[in-house]
Amino acid sequence: MPRYKLTIEYDGTDYVGWQKQPDRPSVQEAVETAVLKFNGAAAEVVGAGRTDAGVHATAQVAHVDLQKEMDSFKVMQGINYYLFNDIDENGNTSQRTGNRVAILKAEPVSEEFHARFSATKRHYIYRIINRRSRLGLEAGRAWHVVEPLDVERMQKAAQYLIGHHDFTSFRDTECQAKSPFKTLEQLDIARHGDEVRITASARSFLHHQVRIMVGSLSLAGKEKWTPEDVQAALKATDRTKAGPTAPPEGLYLVRVEY
Amino acid sequence: MPRYKLTIEYDGTDYVGWQKQPDRPSVQEAVETAVLKFNGAAAEVVGAGRTDAGVHATAQVAHVDLQKEMDSFKVMQGINYYLFNDIDENGNTSQRTGNRVAILKAEPVSEEFHARFSATKRHYIYRIINRRSRLGLEAGRAWHVVEPLDVERMQKAAQYLIGHHDFTSFRDTECQAKSPFKTLEQLDIARHGDEVRITASARSFLHHQVRIMVGSLSLAGKEKWTPEDVQAALKATDRTKAGPTAPPEGLYLVRVEY
Repeated sequence: MPRYKLTIEYDGTDYVGWQKQPDRPSVQEAVETAVLKFNGAAAEVVGAGRTDAGVHATAQVAHVDLQKEMDSFKVMQGINYYLFNDIDENGNTSQRTGNRVAILKAEPVSEEFHARFSATKRHYIYRIINRRSRLGLEAGRAWHVVEPLDVERMQKAAQYLIGHHDFTSFRDTECQAKSPFKTLEQLDIARHGDEVRITASARSFLHHQVRIMVGSLSLAGKEKWTPEDVQAALKATDRTKAGPTAPPEGLYLVRVEY
Repeated sequence: MPRYKLTIEYDGTDYVGWQKQPDRPSVQEAVETAVLKFNGAAAEVVGAGRTDAGVHATAQVAHVDLQKEMDSFKVMQGINYYLFNDIDENGNTSQRTGNRVAILKAEPVSEEFHARFSATKRHYIYRIINRRSRLGLEAGRAWHVVEPLDVERMQKAAQYLIGHHDFTSFRDTECQAKSPFKTLEQLDIARHGDEVRITASARSFLHHQVRIMVGSLSLAGKEKWTPEDVQAALKATDRTKAGPTAPPEGLYLVRVEY
């Protein structure tokens, strides 16, 4: 069966995350339901990253095996059609409100391509709005941090995390990865006005790793921690020694490389 | 009574617009309800721009007269408290979900300051996402245009609109302004990847003026119109000769100068 690589954008606010769960709306289920209608048969949609509830994606990648070969533009359009419309028993179409999942691109790939296992690099962005007043326009789309963040200090702290390390302190206690070792390739912090944007890149991450790194860097940014406290947290290989898990709504999966 | 200038951010999706309307949720009503609770007395909140239903603001400006002089930080925090929380009859507070209006700043101003009449320049941004696939993350926050837009052509067309003109062709037929003459100071178009961003600045605009200008420029961008067709539409002083009214969700009030 012909395999397609899908690039998918979503607002994760109203989903339990990428991964299917019984009786609760997931992004994977939304895409699989649309694929079923378009494809005429059920097919698993395998994602590159299992984003948590509330986490967004500008370019999640997934693969799916369809019944027959088709023009890739039609695959994109066809799945989107069923994501964005409801069709009743008489065949009447009505626009579905509230759908926040869109297929950006479909591409034919070989059977060896696996969205999750073939990925060589994943890129995340974490958005913090650093200001005194509450979030109106960006509620659910960024983490609101009131205390002024010293970005230079966060950048210094981040240097200690880059490279190949045992990231036990920066993984959720329920993380199921066999090894706590990961190679963090990039961890950059930049301010654009009120917004502090953290970019993290690695072949793969542990569960909650980006969010715990961001939570720890925020302590350094608020001057509650020194940059060296972040290093000490890493060396402790103990989740209780790192900072809090930053909330999901600031996190975006922005690119997956193969 | 001491007057305060408020800078206000909102996601306009779930509101009928800035302006109060009976029995329907407006941004003005949301702020006035919070002001009433904070201030202990009703007070009109006068906005600089009457944004339409679905139109957003990163920095709407309003003024309000409060019962007594207060620290401006406390005014900002106090109004936000009642915007973001519900308080029941026993005084118990619960976070209100779905509020998308936030006060960014409060500043004491003289009694002569009038948010609407003292404004010397209003700046709007209109966001178009120009790509083939539907909007996921940006649904409700930008206009989705599928046909490729030629930004250089749009920029040429925009030159004909800059300056002092009779904008009858670019005003809603229900516009209540006495004169159709306005001075458009800036109309810039720039592309950032998939996004085409139009910036418009003037002392004031006619009803739907920015959206009709954007709708007309989009025809030039799609090569359905020449840039000179936009000029002809302006000269016709006839609403039926201009392009369609672009949808509200792409429009943001981003700055008001005094």
